[in-house]
Amino acid sequence: MDEFSLIDEYFRRRQEKSPWVIEGIGDDAAVVGVPPGHELVMATDTLVAGVHFAADAKPYDVGWKALAVNLSDLAAMGADPACALLNLTLPNADSDWLDAFATGFFTLAERFKVALVGGDTTQGPLTVSVQVSGWVPRGEAILRSGAQAGDKLFVTGDLGSAALGLKCQQGEALGLSEAMRCEAARRLDRPEPRVETGCLLRHIASAAIDVSDGLLADVGHLLVASGNRGCRIQANRIPLSPIYQAAMETGLGMSAALTGGDDYELCLTIPPDRLDAFEALRANHSVNMVEIGEIEQTPGIRVFHGSQPMALPASSGYRHFGEQLTTEP
Amino acid sequence: MDEFSLIDEYFRRRQEKSPWVIEGIGDDAAVVGVPPGHELVMATDTLVAGVHFAADAKPYDVGWKALAVNLSDLAAMGADPACALLNLTLPNADSDWLDAFATGFFTLAERFKVALVGGDTTQGPLTVSVQVSGWVPRGEAILRSGAQAGDKLFVTGDLGSAALGLKCQQGEALGLSEAMRCEAARRLDRPEPRVETGCLLRHIASAAIDVSDGLLADVGHLLVASGNRGCRIQANRIPLSPIYQAAMETGLGMSAALTGGDDYELCLTIPPDRLDAFEALRANHSVNMVEIGEIEQTPGIRVFHGSQPMALPASSGYRHFGEQLTTEP
Repeated sequence: MDEFSLIDEYFRRRQEKSPWVIEGIGDDAAVVGVPPGHELVMATDTLVAGVHFAADAKPYDVGWKALAVNLSDLAAMGADPACALLNLTLPNADSDWLDAFATGFFTLAERFKVALVGGDTTQGPLTVSVQVSGWVPRGEAILRSGAQAGDKLFVTGDLGSAALGLKCQQGEALGLSEAMRCEAARRLDRPEPRVETGCLLRHIASAAIDVSDGLLADVGHLLVASGNRGCRIQANRIPLSPIYQAAMETGLGMSAALTGGDDYELCLTIPPDRLDAFEALRANHSVNMVEIGEIEQTPGIRVFHGSQPMALPASSGYRHFGEQLTTEP
Repeated sequence: MDEFSLIDEYFRRRQEKSPWVIEGIGDDAAVVGVPPGHELVMATDTLVAGVHFAADAKPYDVGWKALAVNLSDLAAMGADPACALLNLTLPNADSDWLDAFATGFFTLAERFKVALVGGDTTQGPLTVSVQVSGWVPRGEAILRSGAQAGDKLFVTGDLGSAALGLKCQQGEALGLSEAMRCEAARRLDRPEPRVETGCLLRHIASAAIDVSDGLLADVGHLLVASGNRGCRIQANRIPLSPIYQAAMETGLGMSAALTGGDDYELCLTIPPDRLDAFEALRANHSVNMVEIGEIEQTPGIRVFHGSQPMALPASSGYRHFGEQLTTEP
């Protein structure tokens, strides 16, 4: 099967018609309509076999996650996703693999009405690059740079479960039942991007970032972008999943929740004068959002357990090319 | 050097401020302003080391070509390029390689005022995915699907020179001087996307495609998209570079011009009632555009040399995953 038939069979034919798509897959480029009064928001991420996922990872999960990590970036901007491009480099055209990959990708795409409008299929080492585009009303994107001293720091969902999934995959038992191990794997392999939450936070959050590198690393990025602010984090307030709590009973500490990557929750800051609006949103929203700290003027991240300062792990976020991040950004 | 410093040093700091870019590299996603009354046009292409370029290819050329092939896709739609995303997978962080890669990329980007607004740097086998976005006035994109019987077929520039570059790289002498071999290599490694030409062809061309797979293959795509039309091509009218003409003196035939990929010229169709407008454009435009044939109702590509039908090469365009294209689309 050649690349044109591949694209046709697995990607073009599966799609429903989107109202925004003027020309989808099949021309030199895609043409997409623009909602009036909006700005374009774009994100892209690459997943490499053997680096971001195991070479024998389930193709359904690879397809899901390749889209999810990008949707998570749009969510952190408060953008509505609209369309995606997919660059797939494959060692060979394995139709079972492609079928499952496409099923994972489109299951998530359909949930958020994301149209696949183009891409490129090439032969080579298994690599997946996805690019997503979405829209925000003009001037309403939530940036990393808007946090001010006194803003409260919140996270959606819970943290550290994806890190437990990775530990399980690497053979650690963690005292978890088989069902809990499956759930941890799901959190690692099929993250749920907080798309609706991100859109609801427009006008309310002063800054946001998605937790992909780990809480401390990503809060660090947000603080640097916000003019080298600092923050205090109450580790005992960080929301933990039932799996995480179960693993704590056999000795797991807070480090996976503080530094584990791949959770794809949102970390956001709320100014004091918008806390009422935020509370109203939170009361009616299905996704949990928990206050874990506060932005401060003094640079650096200070983590407490109750009133006790905690020593921070030496490495607080995953990075390529080896160098470690210090926790004082 | 870690990925964040890499991005900073080689990509973020080199950029001039673009009026369209609201948030560039550094947030979860880029935010870009939309010119009123326009549609978004998006293309993406991946180049894999060992497949699309030699593992020891000059990094300047890799950076240039990764952007050029995408700009060529926008050109074929008649779109004005605005911004790009770059996904770079590298085996290691070699600063000399990155510096030269970035120089090639930005030299071309600056020429067309393309802002690099985001991307992803990961560790793995050398792979470059670029995604470009641009704008067309609403409803004015040039599609592959608009060709009608009676439309004249034109190509920009000349064809086959990139194929000669590839032959030289593979060790064929072709009777060319060293200067000519350098020029052939330049045509392969640093193609010139026909961005201005594509924009000028809005309202004039009924259909367009860029010649990336080879003339016969790409004309075949255009014909299929245009409702399974056919065409006749006068091989003796195909524009050839001085290098190509020199190589013909030592026995090179027309096959490289008919089926060689990587030229990134535009192939376009002009309806009879727009030939006057096209002639007016052509008279004042720096890029040569030559009539090479005509669209016909009967499906299939018929190639003639003068009045003599030519036998077509068995394989008429590069494809991944092995299968060959027939010339009757």
